[in-house]
Amino acid sequence: MTHACILLAHGSSDPRWSEPFQQLLIAIRQQLSSEQANRVELAYMELSQPSLTHQINTLVAQGVTDINILPLFFAAGRHLRQDVPQQLEQLKQELKSQGKSVTLMLDSPVGLAPEVNQAICQVVLQQLDQ
Amino acid sequence: MTHACILLAHGSSDPRWSEPFQQLLIAIRQQLSSEQANRVELAYMELSQPSLTHQINTLVAQGVTDINILPLFFAAGRHLRQDVPQQLEQLKQELKSQGKSVTLMLDSPVGLAPEVNQAICQVVLQQLDQ
Repeated sequence: MTHACILLAHGSSDPRWSEPFQQLLIAIRQQLSSEQANRVELAYMELSQPSLTHQINTLVAQGVTDINILPLFFAAGRHLRQDVPQQLEQLKQELKSQGKSVTLMLDSPVGLAPEVNQAICQVVLQQLDQ
Repeated sequence: MTHACILLAHGSSDPRWSEPFQQLLIAIRQQLSSEQANRVELAYMELSQPSLTHQINTLVAQGVTDINILPLFFAAGRHLRQDVPQQLEQLKQELKSQGKSVTLMLDSPVGLAPEVNQAICQVVLQQLDQ
């Protein structure tokens, strides 16, 4: 089993929008070994490139068999409850028909993680202290 | 000068989407004195209620003169670069015409705060270790 993680952001027609996500990817990779760093990628749901499908296919071609998709979202709406699960199911079937068994796991939005929630609380408390 | 903070989320047609934001507001208020807790509110840009305009008008009616608007976003696209600044400028003029001088400050997206970025890094690193 080779494990990888795709950070999934929404995407935007404004190219400046994606800069913080690219910076986040760099910051994460800097904390990893070079082998691990190759197993963290960034994808966008719509409007920006690369797409989730592209990144999954690329990782699978490299021998990855187990992919966590971590949404860089604060909450789950239609996109994460319907669109992305449907897309993943379709992709899983396509890969299976090519003889590739891949586990695709859609995680909870990162904004719901206790660490992230606590960090947001800190930012607000600092602001109110000003 | 009385200071308040409005957490600004995008909004969604799915009512389940807004639950984590309401929980975040509760978590933040629990860490504040009751007086401070009344000065943190939540607003949505579109599709969900209450709106940013409603929350600003409510706080101003309570005597607040200085409001930070903290976007619960990971990055700034068209909404935060154009729509919200235009809305705030219009609102400021309306309040001024009513003889109310209010400072409305649109902050950087909370996802860009170093604390939040570091927390996201932690979540990803934990996931890769699994």
